[in-house]
Amino acid sequence: MKEWPKCGTSGGASYTPRYMLLVVQKFGGTSLADADRIRKVACRVVETYRAGNNVVVVVSAMGKSTDALVNLATEITDTPHPREMDMLLTAGERISMALVAMAIEAHGVPAVSFTGSQAGILTTADHGRAEILDIRAFRVQESLDEGKVAIVAGFQGVSPDSKDVTTLGRGGSDATAVALAASLGADLCEIYTDVDGVFTADPRVELAARKLEELTFEEMLELANAGAGVLMPRSVEFGIRYNIPIHVRSSFHDGEGTWVKEETMEEPIIRAIAHDDSGAKLTVHGVPDQPGIAAAVFEPMGAAGVNVDMIVQNVSSQGVTDISFTVPASSADAAVEVAERVASEIGATGVDLDKGISKITVVGAGMKSESGVAAEMFGILSASGVNIEMISTSTIRISCIIRSEDTQTAIEALHRELIGERS
Amino acid sequence: MKEWPKCGTSGGASYTPRYMLLVVQKFGGTSLADADRIRKVACRVVETYRAGNNVVVVVSAMGKSTDALVNLATEITDTPHPREMDMLLTAGERISMALVAMAIEAHGVPAVSFTGSQAGILTTADHGRAEILDIRAFRVQESLDEGKVAIVAGFQGVSPDSKDVTTLGRGGSDATAVALAASLGADLCEIYTDVDGVFTADPRVELAARKLEELTFEEMLELANAGAGVLMPRSVEFGIRYNIPIHVRSSFHDGEGTWVKEETMEEPIIRAIAHDDSGAKLTVHGVPDQPGIAAAVFEPMGAAGVNVDMIVQNVSSQGVTDISFTVPASSADAAVEVAERVASEIGATGVDLDKGISKITVVGAGMKSESGVAAEMFGILSASGVNIEMISTSTIRISCIIRSEDTQTAIEALHRELIGERS
Repeated sequence: MKEWPKCGTSGGASYTPRYMLLVVQKFGGTSLADADRIRKVACRVVETYRAGNNVVVVVSAMGKSTDALVNLATEITDTPHPREMDMLLTAGERISMALVAMAIEAHGVPAVSFTGSQAGILTTADHGRAEILDIRAFRVQESLDEGKVAIVAGFQGVSPDSKDVTTLGRGGSDATAVALAASLGADLCEIYTDVDGVFTADPRVELAARKLEELTFEEMLELANAGAGVLMPRSVEFGIRYNIPIHVRSSFHDGEGTWVKEETMEEPIIRAIAHDDSGAKLTVHGVPDQPGIAAAVFEPMGAAGVNVDMIVQNVSSQGVTDISFTVPASSADAAVEVAERVASEIGATGVDLDKGISKITVVGAGMKSESGVAAEMFGILSASGVNIEMISTSTIRISCIIRSEDTQTAIEALHRELIGERS
Repeated sequence: MKEWPKCGTSGGASYTPRYMLLVVQKFGGTSLADADRIRKVACRVVETYRAGNNVVVVVSAMGKSTDALVNLATEITDTPHPREMDMLLTAGERISMALVAMAIEAHGVPAVSFTGSQAGILTTADHGRAEILDIRAFRVQESLDEGKVAIVAGFQGVSPDSKDVTTLGRGGSDATAVALAASLGADLCEIYTDVDGVFTADPRVELAARKLEELTFEEMLELANAGAGVLMPRSVEFGIRYNIPIHVRSSFHDGEGTWVKEETMEEPIIRAIAHDDSGAKLTVHGVPDQPGIAAAVFEPMGAAGVNVDMIVQNVSSQGVTDISFTVPASSADAAVEVAERVASEIGATGVDLDKGISKITVVGAGMKSESGVAAEMFGILSASGVNIEMISTSTIRISCIIRSEDTQTAIEALHRELIGERS
């Protein structure tokens, strides 16, 4: 037999059981990158199980193995059939889930792995970006009832109509975990990742950024939509809908991470700052200012699959106006093509593409009951010499488009003035 | 788009369609080792399809990918759970079947891949060595009816009792192909491999060995059981039971291979020679010659999972005798352990293990109606100075155990005298 890390000491400090509950634990690819890390993951699962909890484990594919499968497909054809692409990619979690089950069984703890299909993850038939329709986790429930740890493949499901295997697209494993937690009536969902939790700002950009102990679902959703990569919006949406507390924490140590839940002890005006460099701004110049002109521009964008984020229409002058909007940089070329076609149809004078933008967002549930936050934010940016090109707000969020070279300055100033040092 | 090999010229000579039939084509791991070979396989499938045939493709895992998965499991634990091992290994065919489907679709030919479970391959729940119980290939049939090429994962199935994914063990993909051909009422099953067909002897040992145009199922079964690796016995058994002609041929060129079928044009007395170096001989000395003594030795062997092949009990002398038998060399240590335990229980004097043996087998359906073949074989071996240690026969087969260093001499002499040059 191999030497096993003694469970309970794997992460340095000893792991104290904190619940006697039904827990869903999700591990991403980085946490499962090789046999050694898989053994560490198994150790953590075994500790949670031995503390008296029921445990369901949701896994991603190992390390970069999904990329390797994508590359194989690319070697075969530039236009792989989406159904077959999903068939191919779902091999990734199949491998990791079997290995995790073996590693848990090696501790003498009974474990059984399930594909998305076996776990009853029913989805739409949209290959590569399927939505979860329903979860019928009978086999998972049965294995829990038998005292086993259930390991479920994240990211994948099955379409009840086509009976074909599907994948959920980016962030799919987190969505599987939270949706499964909801379906099983779990007490909480732990998302193990390669960072310590959710931070007040990206710690790679803002050195003073600190880990949050907690934030609300709504705040997390706004941050996720604004580019904070730690959780994808769809998993947060499941958390909101079914009120499943989510604990985002490191897979490399036992320290507490960040709790995402319905209500928090405090509701600060500004909880955190997010930024997103992955957008581009298009401007259509000299647009005749007539009713229906916005629809003429944005309907074809939707039809071309371009996600439009922020929109600003300038004040009309002499019957013509400019319309600016942001799109993901990856859709910029498609957006320009559509915009130029539309511009010539409606008699606009031209289209500009600007890839040098960044979106800065501040989020805080306390904003609801506090006025003047936007003005304060604009004042801070202005005092730092950062120009604001576009603005968009919700009840708990303010987003500004700025030059991408101002990102660092803007985050530092906003963090210092609105969030401050560790209290 | 990538440059595609022009189909019809992929294998050098042009490929002439020969049937308007339902054909099952099975490709092994070597034929699918990389993207380039997968494209070549797709080309061959497309040619067969375009010639007006219905085509079902059965695939193994790519190249050595199954070994890589086994190694991963070994890194995790020395005793992987069999259910999870099957879950792990079935990822291999999942990858190759999706890639083959993509490569076929890239030619504009509709293709759809199915796992063993989706293809309705129902098996026993014996993980790692499941037996096919039934095939309910509704989805495969449906896709054929829609004019699509169906790609099916070899080697895997699902247990209707446990609902768990299973693997069929060694040679499993060939078994899938022939059994599926039987279930679908296919006209023939093509097994594409890295050799040109079935030979009169192993061409690596006997330079004069030549490819057979045809042989009977019974002959193939005897050869397969005697160590001819080109087809595994279980796939031949499906061929026999459902009378599915099997065409064993090279995946690297378009030349005819070897047909395995119910009856052949000619029935030579000796069709081919097989040899097997993978056995070991055990001898239990000084066994009291009493009724039931054979059972006392061989029942515990069976219980220990040791497959006993040939058995010889010497003539009794003064109330004691010797019993010799052969087992796979991989089971030799287990067999010795059992034999020594039994020997002390029954009062035998000792156990000898001999790993330096080889089994030489001659096979021919014409033997049924010809006497004196065994005598002729023994005479040839004797004249070549090869000593025979054990003998076993069936109606169409004679096997002799000899010293392994005599293998080359024995095969050359038997091939020269009993098979001769290309007629």
